[in-house]
Amino acid sequence: MGASGKTSLGVDPLMLGRAIIDADRRAAHALNLVPSENRISPLASLPLGSDFYNRYFFNTDGDPLFWEFRGGEEIAHIEALGIDALRRMASARYCNVRPISGMSAMIITVAALSRPGSTVVSVDQNSGGHYATSALLGRFGRESRLLGGGGGRVDESRLADLLAPGDVDLVYVDVQNCVRTPDFRAMSAVVKDVSPGTRLYVDASHYLGLVFGGHVVNPLTCGADAFGGSTHKSFPGPHKGVIFTNSDDVDEKLRAAQFDLLSSHHFAETLALALAALEVEQHIGEYARATNDNARRLARALADAGFRVHGDSSAGYTDTHQVWVELDNTADAYALSNRLADVGIRVNLHSTLPGVPGVHLRLGSNEVTFEGAGPRAIERLADALVTARERALEPRTVSEIRRRFGAPFYTDSEKLTGEVRL
Amino acid sequence: MGASGKTSLGVDPLMLGRAIIDADRRAAHALNLVPSENRISPLASLPLGSDFYNRYFFNTDGDPLFWEFRGGEEIAHIEALGIDALRRMASARYCNVRPISGMSAMIITVAALSRPGSTVVSVDQNSGGHYATSALLGRFGRESRLLGGGGGRVDESRLADLLAPGDVDLVYVDVQNCVRTPDFRAMSAVVKDVSPGTRLYVDASHYLGLVFGGHVVNPLTCGADAFGGSTHKSFPGPHKGVIFTNSDDVDEKLRAAQFDLLSSHHFAETLALALAALEVEQHIGEYARATNDNARRLARALADAGFRVHGDSSAGYTDTHQVWVELDNTADAYALSNRLADVGIRVNLHSTLPGVPGVHLRLGSNEVTFEGAGPRAIERLADALVTARERALEPRTVSEIRRRFGAPFYTDSEKLTGEVRL
Repeated sequence: MGASGKTSLGVDPLMLGRAIIDADRRAAHALNLVPSENRISPLASLPLGSDFYNRYFFNTDGDPLFWEFRGGEEIAHIEALGIDALRRMASARYCNVRPISGMSAMIITVAALSRPGSTVVSVDQNSGGHYATSALLGRFGRESRLLGGGGGRVDESRLADLLAPGDVDLVYVDVQNCVRTPDFRAMSAVVKDVSPGTRLYVDASHYLGLVFGGHVVNPLTCGADAFGGSTHKSFPGPHKGVIFTNSDDVDEKLRAAQFDLLSSHHFAETLALALAALEVEQHIGEYARATNDNARRLARALADAGFRVHGDSSAGYTDTHQVWVELDNTADAYALSNRLADVGIRVNLHSTLPGVPGVHLRLGSNEVTFEGAGPRAIERLADALVTARERALEPRTVSEIRRRFGAPFYTDSEKLTGEVRL
Repeated sequence: MGASGKTSLGVDPLMLGRAIIDADRRAAHALNLVPSENRISPLASLPLGSDFYNRYFFNTDGDPLFWEFRGGEEIAHIEALGIDALRRMASARYCNVRPISGMSAMIITVAALSRPGSTVVSVDQNSGGHYATSALLGRFGRESRLLGGGGGRVDESRLADLLAPGDVDLVYVDVQNCVRTPDFRAMSAVVKDVSPGTRLYVDASHYLGLVFGGHVVNPLTCGADAFGGSTHKSFPGPHKGVIFTNSDDVDEKLRAAQFDLLSSHHFAETLALALAALEVEQHIGEYARATNDNARRLARALADAGFRVHGDSSAGYTDTHQVWVELDNTADAYALSNRLADVGIRVNLHSTLPGVPGVHLRLGSNEVTFEGAGPRAIERLADALVTARERALEPRTVSEIRRRFGAPFYTDSEKLTGEVRL
């Protein structure tokens, strides 16, 4: 026994482990400007390397006679504390943390709040909707009806016509790519007026951290029945999903659907989510503000340097963490992305942003803000983007930007080692 | 900024991190006899704590012009090598590693291989089927038709009647709780005879490692169109899902469904799966044999000591990693489970095992076998179970059992530290 040495094809798994560690060392230094990613904190990362990664956990009510899977008893309270923190940030009575991803939350929500054969309204991809929603609905026997708009935005006034036939169980607001969020209040008013039996759900995956921080308006206070999404984009958590509601009935429907569609809820990652929530909670408003401030600062600096930045300049270009920058052509886009990647600045190229033709940088300020970037770091970062249009960057570019960072919104590794890893 | 100190409700996240580390220390020592769990190896666990946990990865074909998400370039080959190892173990042309759990693989398979409005045959829970399948099918607009049996087993001969109406797109063999696997060859013959357009899929979540090791017959060689499942039960990998097929058409359908139903495939966990596969590949036959040998040895020892062990004693009680032990009543069951848990032996109580009324221990030999348990350790483990029926166990029980372990089927932490964490 013992799995040392090479496999039959001459691959040594240990060498691959070393390659991952080497790549991870470079990744730790890198600056990620991807709006759909964030960097989980060292504290929140702890459970992922623990034995709880290997375990199931079902006893969400802490029933002393229901420890069918042993071991979770000792730390079950951490999941409960995390749920409380999430509920506080979402101003919601109920928080379902069992979805294992944003798409898992989407599947559970669709199953819970609409019936096979019914119609579900979601947002046209050209107006910011998620690429998968309509096809997913079709695969699950729902009719998909798309809410469009103009200029890449949702036109809330069109919703009334879509609801008029009376066959819509659910309006699923799946806008992801956006520098302005839809008007949830207007949509809710239309639903209540035209089709009061229809449920309104907001998939806030991209701007979840901004909702928690009070920077984007909370869908529940606007009349939505529920909202949720993935927890690793503007919210700096693990790859999980959450769903919030204030309704007993919706909560019960979500629990029932989740029971049918999910077994393990990935216990270690739920613990990671709890730690991430508790760690960021008292700073969430500041984090959300700083994230949008940084996005606007980056947008302004790039526009001043001659980049074509999407959005209304007089309104700061963006209300979210996203900044869209149009590039001349694909060759230039790859050259820019490659020059940035060469020194450890990672950007997202996007050719199908809603309402804006051509290839774009889809930038996100969320991760660097979580890591401590403030005005000085963002200015230097913008300089790097400007320079990379023309030529290769100096290898020290990222170090220079990082030197301008303030304290992060999490407990750094050194403090963690001192206080936790005793 | 900086997230030190307590939250508004007086909870210190650092204290919770410490609690997780403390619990993890106890968990590392524990013996887990849960058939649906395994312990990922230290090598395979490496990516989970890395920055790749935070990242998306879409460029499965390695297109040099498609690095929309940067950073994955350096280690993309590891995913590819892992897929090759999985394909070799499954003797399959195609391996889809994008599902993020066993249920995710189930959802993708149902969506890929059946249409809304069609009928899907799965296995009655009383014959070993998964608790969720039938309800899941209903939520996705499929008609659910259940294949039953007698005495907790599938009766393959009943399949012809279920297929006769001609409306079945898919037979989904979701047997999980079993000491004998169904006769895939017989089922395939019926499908080909009665309804050749129907697809046959085997959800091998529980016995995946035993199929890989050649101990349970490979569904593809029996005529199934595809098989797959979760990767953390008898196969000692992370919480992910895989689907195998030899059919171009089925592979294409799975890819299309996966694209619509999944976004991130959890990159770090896919790397973990790759490392787990490459690490265990050359020992997979030995691991599978030892797992069943240990299950039979445990079953025999418990039966000899007066426990009522399910199964045919003349055939070794079990062909899988599972051993079912009937207990007198719930109070006794909890007392036994608690006494074992007190010293770090973790067992699963189950009240709905197919075909066997009453409360049972559902034991699995998979994890302790992966950790190195051989005959001597299993005998000592059986002694502990026997003793715990009557009285509390000595605190040193687990150490005594572990002292009898041989080498594990993975690179242990010390060697890993020496060779990888340079």
